Amino acid sequence: MTKKMAIIASKGTLDGAYPPFLLASTAAALGFEAKIFFTFYGLQLLKKDLSPKVSPLGNPAMPMPVPMPNLLQILPGVEAFASWMMRRKLKQKGVASLTELRTICLDSNVELIACQMTVDLFDFKNHDFIDGISHGGAATFLAFASEADITLYI
Amino acid sequence: MTKKMAIIASKGTLDGAYPPFLLASTAAALGFEAKIFFTFYGLQLLKKDLSPKVSPLGNPAMPMPVPMPNLLQILPGVEAFASWMMRRKLKQKGVASLTELRTICLDSNVELIACQMTVDLFDFKNHDFIDGISHGGAATFLAFASEADITLYI
Amino acid sequence: MTKKMAIIASKGTLDGAYPPFLLASTAAALGFEAKIFFTFYGLQLLKKDLSPKVSPLGNPAMPMPVPMPNLLQILPGVEAFASWMMRRKLKQKGVASLTELRTICLDSNVELIACQMTVDLFDFKNHDFIDGISHGGAATFLAFASEADITLYI
Repeated sequence: MTKKMAIIASKGTLDGAYPPFLLASTAAALGFEAKIFFTFYGLQLLKKDLSPKVSPLGNPAMPMPVPMPNLLQILPGVEAFASWMMRRKLKQKGVASLTELRTICLDSNVELIACQMTVDLFDFKNHDFIDGISHGGAATFLAFASEADITLYI
Repeated sequence: MTKKMAIIASKGTLDGAYPPFLLASTAAALGFEAKIFFTFYGLQLLKKDLSPKVSPLGNPAMPMPVPMPNLLQILPGVEAFASWMMRRKLKQKGVASLTELRTICLDSNVELIACQMTVDLFDFKNHDFIDGISHGGAATFLAFASEADITLYI
Repeated sequence: MTKKMAIIASKGTLDGAYPPFLLASTAAALGFEAKIFFTFYGLQLLKKDLSPKVSPLGNPAMPMPVPMPNLLQILPGVEAFASWMMRRKLKQKGVASLTELRTICLDSNVELIACQMTVDLFDFKNHDFIDGISHGGAATFLAFASEADITLYI
């Protein structure tokens, strides 16, 4: 029987964006049926313009090229710099970009579902999102999740 | 056979509070048996006075009415403003308040369990919490989770 | 049949470090087969020198001895103070240290797996890590997770 994986993606940051797309594309490569339900900030990951940022603020575990006190981390430009640095690192190491990973997910039939409640809440427009996604509610997703072999909230 | 859902709620912020209560009440409406284990900061969600805040700091994915650099986000009042804004948005859109959702959970027999270790750790008092909750440890909860169809760590 | 638990540990902070080690050691004590896959910042938890910090920034739910505005929280020393305070509290209350919990996990045959992609990404060296861990990729871990009774992303 086909294995199933259900992921709830709730984060919209650069470091929160990789795990759902990486895990779902890996699962699809293994022959799993995978669905991701994008809710709250996660909805940002379905936008056409996919350019999430990462912030070192409040995350003392983030590897920085030089140790940097919070007092400096709030300066304008640090967030952009940290995001650029992580993106460059990923590229240097040959990790696919988020946009590529997202396309791989779609091409391998991972269902990408926008949480309708969050769409309404944050006034997203349908033309903000990429093609090929679906819309749905928590109830429908939980029904799928209850049949899944792996359930993750990211 | 009744489906089961096991949630571990570890966050105490406004945006971290909605998912466990929303998912558990939805699951209960679908006829699932649902239990939430509140641990670490999540324990704040069982307090009588339920007024969690949300912070834009360290979360560049949070939709703000105007883009705001971190340098401004640390100013006194911004956190309170962001929390007020999100609460107002939820209300405008007809989303139930956290207190309402929590009551719906209790009324539909979602078991709300306070992690005893965290209660001791942060010196919470029993009269801090709402009525109708239970207390327990990780071992008991894992036994339930291992029988559940959906397991999520939020 | 032996129950199985699969945890993905993605955080490298003090408060993000306890849940995977606590849950996995509890599961092992219950006779479960447990594996933790350390990815992204979670990889910090496999380092020989295990001294994660916790930050109150961006987490308004963190219990502080005195309420402290974000404007003060960014001052040098506050993060170190919050980390020291939480560590002291845990010790006072008789909670095992992270290093102890990690050793308990290893001694009770919890498999600790370093995500190879993250090791390469952040240029970790093998001598940075404790002995007794293994290395692996997402595909192998998902295969295990799909057989597990409990799957959690922390």
